[in-house]
Amino acid sequence: MTAHSGRHFLQIPGPTNVPDRVLHAIAQPTIDHRGPEFAELALDLLNRLKPVFGTGNPVVVYPASGTGAWEAALVNTLSPGDRVIAFETGHFASLWRDMAERLGLTVDFVPGDWRHGADPTALAERLAADTGHEIAAVMVVHNETSTGVTSRIPEIRAAIDEADHPALLLVDTISSLGSIDYRHDDWGVDVTVACSQKGLMLPPGLSFNAISDKALAAATTARLPKSFWDWTPILDNNERGFYPYTPATNLLYGLREALLMLEEEGLPNVFARHRRHAAATRAAVHGWGLEVLCADEREYSGALTAVLLGTEYDADKVRRIILERFDMSLGTGLGKLAGRVFRIGHLGHFNDLMLAGTLSGVQMGLELAGVTVDPAGLPAALAVLRAE
Amino acid sequence: MTAHSGRHFLQIPGPTNVPDRVLHAIAQPTIDHRGPEFAELALDLLNRLKPVFGTGNPVVVYPASGTGAWEAALVNTLSPGDRVIAFETGHFASLWRDMAERLGLTVDFVPGDWRHGADPTALAERLAADTGHEIAAVMVVHNETSTGVTSRIPEIRAAIDEADHPALLLVDTISSLGSIDYRHDDWGVDVTVACSQKGLMLPPGLSFNAISDKALAAATTARLPKSFWDWTPILDNNERGFYPYTPATNLLYGLREALLMLEEEGLPNVFARHRRHAAATRAAVHGWGLEVLCADEREYSGALTAVLLGTEYDADKVRRIILERFDMSLGTGLGKLAGRVFRIGHLGHFNDLMLAGTLSGVQMGLELAGVTVDPAGLPAALAVLRAE
Amino acid sequence: MTAHSGRHFLQIPGPTNVPDRVLHAIAQPTIDHRGPEFAELALDLLNRLKPVFGTGNPVVVYPASGTGAWEAALVNTLSPGDRVIAFETGHFASLWRDMAERLGLTVDFVPGDWRHGADPTALAERLAADTGHEIAAVMVVHNETSTGVTSRIPEIRAAIDEADHPALLLVDTISSLGSIDYRHDDWGVDVTVACSQKGLMLPPGLSFNAISDKALAAATTARLPKSFWDWTPILDNNERGFYPYTPATNLLYGLREALLMLEEEGLPNVFARHRRHAAATRAAVHGWGLEVLCADEREYSGALTAVLLGTEYDADKVRRIILERFDMSLGTGLGKLAGRVFRIGHLGHFNDLMLAGTLSGVQMGLELAGVTVDPAGLPAALAVLRAE
Amino acid sequence: MTAHSGRHFLQIPGPTNVPDRVLHAIAQPTIDHRGPEFAELALDLLNRLKPVFGTGNPVVVYPASGTGAWEAALVNTLSPGDRVIAFETGHFASLWRDMAERLGLTVDFVPGDWRHGADPTALAERLAADTGHEIAAVMVVHNETSTGVTSRIPEIRAAIDEADHPALLLVDTISSLGSIDYRHDDWGVDVTVACSQKGLMLPPGLSFNAISDKALAAATTARLPKSFWDWTPILDNNERGFYPYTPATNLLYGLREALLMLEEEGLPNVFARHRRHAAATRAAVHGWGLEVLCADEREYSGALTAVLLGTEYDADKVRRIILERFDMSLGTGLGKLAGRVFRIGHLGHFNDLMLAGTLSGVQMGLELAGVTVDPAGLPAALAVLRAE
Repeated sequence: MTAHSGRHFLQIPGPTNVPDRVLHAIAQPTIDHRGPEFAELALDLLNRLKPVFGTGNPVVVYPASGTGAWEAALVNTLSPGDRVIAFETGHFASLWRDMAERLGLTVDFVPGDWRHGADPTALAERLAADTGHEIAAVMVVHNETSTGVTSRIPEIRAAIDEADHPALLLVDTISSLGSIDYRHDDWGVDVTVACSQKGLMLPPGLSFNAISDKALAAATTARLPKSFWDWTPILDNNERGFYPYTPATNLLYGLREALLMLEEEGLPNVFARHRRHAAATRAAVHGWGLEVLCADEREYSGALTAVLLGTEYDADKVRRIILERFDMSLGTGLGKLAGRVFRIGHLGHFNDLMLAGTLSGVQMGLELAGVTVDPAGLPAALAVLRAE
Repeated sequence: MTAHSGRHFLQIPGPTNVPDRVLHAIAQPTIDHRGPEFAELALDLLNRLKPVFGTGNPVVVYPASGTGAWEAALVNTLSPGDRVIAFETGHFASLWRDMAERLGLTVDFVPGDWRHGADPTALAERLAADTGHEIAAVMVVHNETSTGVTSRIPEIRAAIDEADHPALLLVDTISSLGSIDYRHDDWGVDVTVACSQKGLMLPPGLSFNAISDKALAAATTARLPKSFWDWTPILDNNERGFYPYTPATNLLYGLREALLMLEEEGLPNVFARHRRHAAATRAAVHGWGLEVLCADEREYSGALTAVLLGTEYDADKVRRIILERFDMSLGTGLGKLAGRVFRIGHLGHFNDLMLAGTLSGVQMGLELAGVTVDPAGLPAALAVLRAE
Repeated sequence: MTAHSGRHFLQIPGPTNVPDRVLHAIAQPTIDHRGPEFAELALDLLNRLKPVFGTGNPVVVYPASGTGAWEAALVNTLSPGDRVIAFETGHFASLWRDMAERLGLTVDFVPGDWRHGADPTALAERLAADTGHEIAAVMVVHNETSTGVTSRIPEIRAAIDEADHPALLLVDTISSLGSIDYRHDDWGVDVTVACSQKGLMLPPGLSFNAISDKALAAATTARLPKSFWDWTPILDNNERGFYPYTPATNLLYGLREALLMLEEEGLPNVFARHRRHAAATRAAVHGWGLEVLCADEREYSGALTAVLLGTEYDADKVRRIILERFDMSLGTGLGKLAGRVFRIGHLGHFNDLMLAGTLSGVQMGLELAGVTVDPAGLPAALAVLRAE
Repeated sequence: MTAHSGRHFLQIPGPTNVPDRVLHAIAQPTIDHRGPEFAELALDLLNRLKPVFGTGNPVVVYPASGTGAWEAALVNTLSPGDRVIAFETGHFASLWRDMAERLGLTVDFVPGDWRHGADPTALAERLAADTGHEIAAVMVVHNETSTGVTSRIPEIRAAIDEADHPALLLVDTISSLGSIDYRHDDWGVDVTVACSQKGLMLPPGLSFNAISDKALAAATTARLPKSFWDWTPILDNNERGFYPYTPATNLLYGLREALLMLEEEGLPNVFARHRRHAAATRAAVHGWGLEVLCADEREYSGALTAVLLGTEYDADKVRRIILERFDMSLGTGLGKLAGRVFRIGHLGHFNDLMLAGTLSGVQMGLELAGVTVDPAGLPAALAVLRAE
């Protein structure tokens, strides 16, 4: 048992391994959030945030976790009783649906098998049928963290455009932003929901709404009650680098550092790195003779890979053995995937040898748990890494 | 100009000076929030939190700033259109009132002069008049951060009890918790609202609701829409040391460290230290020949002192000179006190010599700004500190 | 190229990966080294150090790198012109010999092939021949960092004892202490030389002399000039927890934390972990069809493994490719091993998956550098790790 | 008793308050000291060091405390039996004298009263008498940390020049470098000895030798035994950014950060700040009716002020009360000043309000210890600070 020496492998699909630079940044002394030094910090990072979302519009930063930014996207744009469409792509899409209903919206939940992304065709049909334009918004999870499936947002956008439908497009990029190519403006997204603890390499505690002009206009008439999440006072204060309430200053220090790191590596390189690590991981899974949960190769996630075990195995037992023997945390199967699936996070501050260590641990853990695997998995992954 | 050497004096009434121990704690690597190590952390700190609130009941910790916990107190206990009583004790009481109205509540706002706390007599009159028990809640700010006035919660409680009125008592302890004596259970408070960045010595980003049984019962029928702030799933998950969404893990590390520090010093000693520093500060203010904003000595705040300048002076000019010349941040006058008042925070991780440096800087800054002051202020403060 | 994301793999045989706990400890504010808080720290850690050296005698801590502790061992016990025996076990043994000569000692350097440890038989012969007891000391490097060969100190001791020779036994444990079983008292060592940046998991900057009673006695007559390295004033001051000059306070904070970590894991477990990782590494090397430099299996090092390449290869090219492509630092071939050898450090704060990542990187790097290797290396290592 | 809240006041004349930026820097992961990243770091900081010493020549950085750099200055330039002149300016000058004697040098120790700096006239006399040029070196402590007296190095230099004497000039700037104006080249100093934990704002553990061409030449013939301290291999390795042994990497990270901070403030501003704080401190001492130990106003130290108490008082009792009641560390009286003197450090990372807090604590502590003081001390200091 070597669990207590060396560095823990945090290979859940978020929170991700926080870089030392970011940890040091958040450990700087807190400053006056109404003083000139804070304003300089805030104006700088609010600008640096925009390219990460692929937007020229403002991005609101909440001192709250990602779930809060989900709520913000809804209460700022919608009114009690509004109809929205959502897609059953997995556990988090289901949770967001639940939230919408709790807040008083009516959700048309397009069924899914948790192995595919949001279906543009199904959306097109529903929008075509909505001749009265009662549907106020379409809610999509870009990268479903429970399944490792990445929905094709441009095709969703195209479906809305082709139907010439005025519905807002709300997209959750919780586990894709900063890891998987994403373009708020180009793809015509109205509200992008994101958080700090995945591709942005921060601890949890910050979340985001990127907002289109159309969403800003919708906010002026939306009637769901709101105060903390209200965009208006935040955007007003942000213009001078301030907040209507006390912001999470130390996490903002970390955010600035993380944004600098993304700039240094270059976003296209960041995305390529994630794609490459995902390809190596799938090579391992397939090499082991196991199944990747994601059923459509156009929708493979660059951020995580969910591995589906046969019904004779308990995925949580595999995870437990790996945690105890190899000090590595993997993601559990959520909702109806409980016990069937484990998830390997390969996003954020990560590199080839961390992935090699991760996949070595998974392979050994599978073997120790009695899952029949072909040891060709690991070499297959290394072949991908070596080939560059 | 020595502004760029040495340590900044952060003497706003929060965020306060974060101890190195806490900064180091929050810089530890983020862990899996669904793993056994996290559960151990959470169960431990949820227990250690209770005595700080003076409660045996659960305390909900939000990954959000204090304003969020205000909203949580309202949306968990009240329904659209409910009547509540609030007191115009200052800027933050006014903001909380605004929030209540934005969320669809009807607020009876007892007028005040921003120099006194919540008036138990006015409350008694209003409750007596409310024979139909339409008033659902009484909202009080314990320590008004904009004025340095501490409301007498036990007398507020007594007024409610004497009226035999069922209204909930909601108390904001944003700038008092961990600095000024406070007792959720003994004083019959139903929801206590608090945050991390004041007496708890943390960076901003966490906030709290301590909850009475009566408030828990009210939550079962409250109809304001809620999801993120909903106590129920949090309390359910907390029982096993977990959260329904990703908690702000690194700030929780800091919280545990801060709670240990409060235990080490002992809460009664913590409160006595704040009272003593407040007394020394008032001795300085009076010695300078200036006026303390708080007009009732029973309501002097242990956490901050607001200093009222004559109308011929600009308090923000004083603050600006002190920031530029002495690298110290003081609190500005908020709302209708703008320009008339500056606020000296003497709460959190603080000691005698930090206070002596603070008051020295204020005295020199007043002199440099042309405010007529008697130099007897500082010696008067030192006399208090020396006397133990 | 993923060099700039994720954590660097620092797999040289020291400095080793410093645990976050230790890094945080050294970042605490410096305190008065003549005050009571420092004395408490020093007395505590001087006690905790003893079991790590396997001694009940005092251990001197220098605010200096390990080379300084080499010098200290010599100048405290020897006089100009003294004869000493040393063994050509590798680069560092040669450097220590050079130092002894520069300081005015006469060194009888037993020749070696850099693939074996110090030879007890050769020592026995020399001591037997020294009927006049002119040899004042025997200098041995316990674990030769340049070769990955661990000398058998108990057999060296036995040779001295059997010759009934009064020579002092001076042992360099620079890269073994805290990683490989070592017993200052039981093995009759007179001065043990150690440093902070290997098994002790600290940054470089501290070094150590553990001292037998016999060495203390020798110090009273030794005539090499000394001041900074002089044991006497240090030992005198240490009794009350102080130093005759300013100690490296912040590194001492780190030392205390590192000693706590070793206690938590348990020294026997620490040694077993290193043995196991060394075995897995050798399994990989042999699996690749390459040669381990250490030629005697009784002398395999638990701390590092030096890999010998055929003359047709350039070991530094392999290292360079691994650094550039996989962001891992390996040890270079030193002295006459330059270009022929690379060294894999597997000591200090380390675990199974870090080793798996390390060996994956070595295997890929060898392949990329055109070294013919059998890919069976990595699976062979995993088999060792999996077998526990 | 508020000792356990707030920040400790570390007002000994070194180690000084380490800035958070520097503490964070030293907590970065240790890197390979033989890799390209280290070389870049070393070359950069070796260059940035030069202007701080006022030299264009190389500066050697030792992974050792300042006492080691004293030894280095001697063993690199002198031979057994060499005659040197030193001045009894205080405790540290006496310790350096002791070291020289222990190393086998013959010291002509010019007597002093511990209230004046090195006497240029006495030196001139001795050099004039040394017609045979037997004196190999002149050793001077620039700022005597035990007394707060700053010797006038240019006048010492002038005395040597006027005597046309070839002796080397060795100067200890342990507590002046980075605080008090100093010019290695302009003042014709041959070896400047310095350390990390005073004006350089680092923790202890690094020390320095700045070296003139004349000293480099002397080193080629100096015959004191040396190995660890030998300049030659260090200077050779430094040319490529490396070290002949493992350097104290993490402290070097801190050194780079500290050098950046000095550059940002500007050395002339740094010196002016120290002069101003020293003036304010003396104003306080004189205001209290107490005596500054330094007897010549041309020699007042910018780094610390030693306060001389009447024989009826115990200076250590004052210090103890201040530590217990106000959590501030002051310097004790050393050597023959024990009990008569306490020392206030006002150097390093320091500002006006820290000084005001410091002097407030001293004033209160004196009063609590029963020392008769005029409370006019503190206002006199503030008048200096306010006047800018």
